[in-house]
Amino acid sequence: MIETDILIIGAGPTGLFAVFEAGLLKLKCHLIDGLPQPGGQLTELYPKKPIFDIPGYPSVGAAELIDNLMEQIKQFEPGFTLNEVAETIDQLEDGTFIVTSNKGTKHHAKAIAIAGGLGSFEPRKPLIENIAFYEEKGVEYFVKNPEQFRDKNIVIAGGGDSALDWSIFLSDVASNVTLVHRRNEFRGALDSVEKVQELKKLGKINLITPAEITAIHGNERVESLTLSNGDDTQIIETDYFIPLFGLTPKLGPIANWGLEIEKNAIKVNNALDYQTNIEGIYAIGDINTYPGKLKLILCGFHEATLMCQSIYNRLNPGKKYVLKYTTVSGVDGFDGTRKEAEKAVVKSID
Amino acid sequence: MIETDILIIGAGPTGLFAVFEAGLLKLKCHLIDGLPQPGGQLTELYPKKPIFDIPGYPSVGAAELIDNLMEQIKQFEPGFTLNEVAETIDQLEDGTFIVTSNKGTKHHAKAIAIAGGLGSFEPRKPLIENIAFYEEKGVEYFVKNPEQFRDKNIVIAGGGDSALDWSIFLSDVASNVTLVHRRNEFRGALDSVEKVQELKKLGKINLITPAEITAIHGNERVESLTLSNGDDTQIIETDYFIPLFGLTPKLGPIANWGLEIEKNAIKVNNALDYQTNIEGIYAIGDINTYPGKLKLILCGFHEATLMCQSIYNRLNPGKKYVLKYTTVSGVDGFDGTRKEAEKAVVKSID
Repeated sequence: MIETDILIIGAGPTGLFAVFEAGLLKLKCHLIDGLPQPGGQLTELYPKKPIFDIPGYPSVGAAELIDNLMEQIKQFEPGFTLNEVAETIDQLEDGTFIVTSNKGTKHHAKAIAIAGGLGSFEPRKPLIENIAFYEEKGVEYFVKNPEQFRDKNIVIAGGGDSALDWSIFLSDVASNVTLVHRRNEFRGALDSVEKVQELKKLGKINLITPAEITAIHGNERVESLTLSNGDDTQIIETDYFIPLFGLTPKLGPIANWGLEIEKNAIKVNNALDYQTNIEGIYAIGDINTYPGKLKLILCGFHEATLMCQSIYNRLNPGKKYVLKYTTVSGVDGFDGTRKEAEKAVVKSID
Repeated sequence: MIETDILIIGAGPTGLFAVFEAGLLKLKCHLIDGLPQPGGQLTELYPKKPIFDIPGYPSVGAAELIDNLMEQIKQFEPGFTLNEVAETIDQLEDGTFIVTSNKGTKHHAKAIAIAGGLGSFEPRKPLIENIAFYEEKGVEYFVKNPEQFRDKNIVIAGGGDSALDWSIFLSDVASNVTLVHRRNEFRGALDSVEKVQELKKLGKINLITPAEITAIHGNERVESLTLSNGDDTQIIETDYFIPLFGLTPKLGPIANWGLEIEKNAIKVNNALDYQTNIEGIYAIGDINTYPGKLKLILCGFHEATLMCQSIYNRLNPGKKYVLKYTTVSGVDGFDGTRKEAEKAVVKSID
């Protein structure tokens, strides 16, 4: 059982920043996210793209912003449960919560912050009969750990940035990379398209277009695939099949937790603290809705902050600690570090 | 008459960021501030100090944050009325506003954003009879334009960072700098104290402690000062007297505009758009109050954003433009510039 003060569901920018504000109030956070790394959409969908509306950054790369947030919160030592989706929530008699993931990991928390962005990202799956049987037996919808593919034969399907970028990356890891796409044209960053072209010429990527994978074969796990182009078909042997057809955000299991949902988002009390209709469960960032809501990262930062103050007040009735200027108060890390502005000296001049 | 869509009263970080969000909505902003430069407290009170709670910045210098915000908004070409305090506000029949400064400058705006921070910074004045007579006739409470003091004799009074830093800076500009403090001990950054010590030894700053200026003399303007240490007094000739005894924030003339005030702050509707009790007048950042309010810069950024969206909706009834991810929409400057994420290419690989 993982114990924490605040369990944050979703490790995107809003969830990550909540760790910082909670830390200022001496509250410990643990994050759970279905993706293999922190950062949510920013690292999964557009790591190299610039964001222009983060206050104080004329432009910042999405992955760079996440790196900076991770650096900002590391002193508060957040825990992470990655590659797992929060599936069920149970409230105990003392008002605390148990959240269990799809893999059975249990988390015990005094408050819950749902910072799930657009929801959990579920892969678009190709329409192949029995593909479910081969999931985690050779079929992978995410590259969670590239080393898994070392010296293996892999087939990647898809025509966008993920398919291009992972083909490039894994061409140095796998013994054999085949990239299959149903069109001749790829849609992605110019760099990536050109790099795949070059690797194809060098024989490091085996490119097959236009074509589709239409069947999977193997007794225990993936052994071979049927490759089709109209009526032409052939069988290719492989260890892994990685369809990268994009992700669709789904509210997922959260939809069954008894929360008030409106237009695929969770209703919160924006007049006070972004709490949901269940006391102790908050929703912040793109996943919540209220009158005038804007789905902007900077709004998530504010919501996370007011939420942390509210959780502190709830857990410490009667105590009066209010978040204030860090320039004055400094920042005390859970790891024993302290950051503070240089103090004024009082000194005579003679 | 200065014409603008939004007149922002206060050019601190919240007011500056409002220019950006307004710009995304094609609304033009003009800012008015009593200080000689943008940045509010950050540039006036603690430019060199670090801030730790700006999301995405593990640490950022106060002046650096303001520089970054100025860079972020420059494409939206904000106008500035500096060194002037918004004194009166009049609503015209068409719902627009005329704001007149203490120097008579008139601004005509469709909406008003009060981003006044802790209020206008008023200097603590020494208790010297008739000092008011000499204001702008040799007595200056701010160094607005250092060139004003070139080759002049100046007397600075005070024992903190401002007195130390301006003595250092002006020792290269004025023909003669005298620094007077009622104690031997100064309170400031170690660097500054040591630098004054060094300049004193070099004869570039004339240091007189413990002592006070107790009288000002001159017919038309400042000609000399009485310097006292207990019963010892002497007269020193000077062109300028610059008392730097710190600033006190005052709500100032805003308090008389008919706005609902609570605990020295302006009540706003936080459940929607941070509008005050007067339609078309909003209050954002440290100057407003609502249930759960935290006086943090990051909260001001959020409030500014929801306010801009509300002003847009009010000025463009029926139009449906909503602030969204800049990574997708890009940013179009009023100066003709465009910032956008690199577009995906669609390209075949052969």
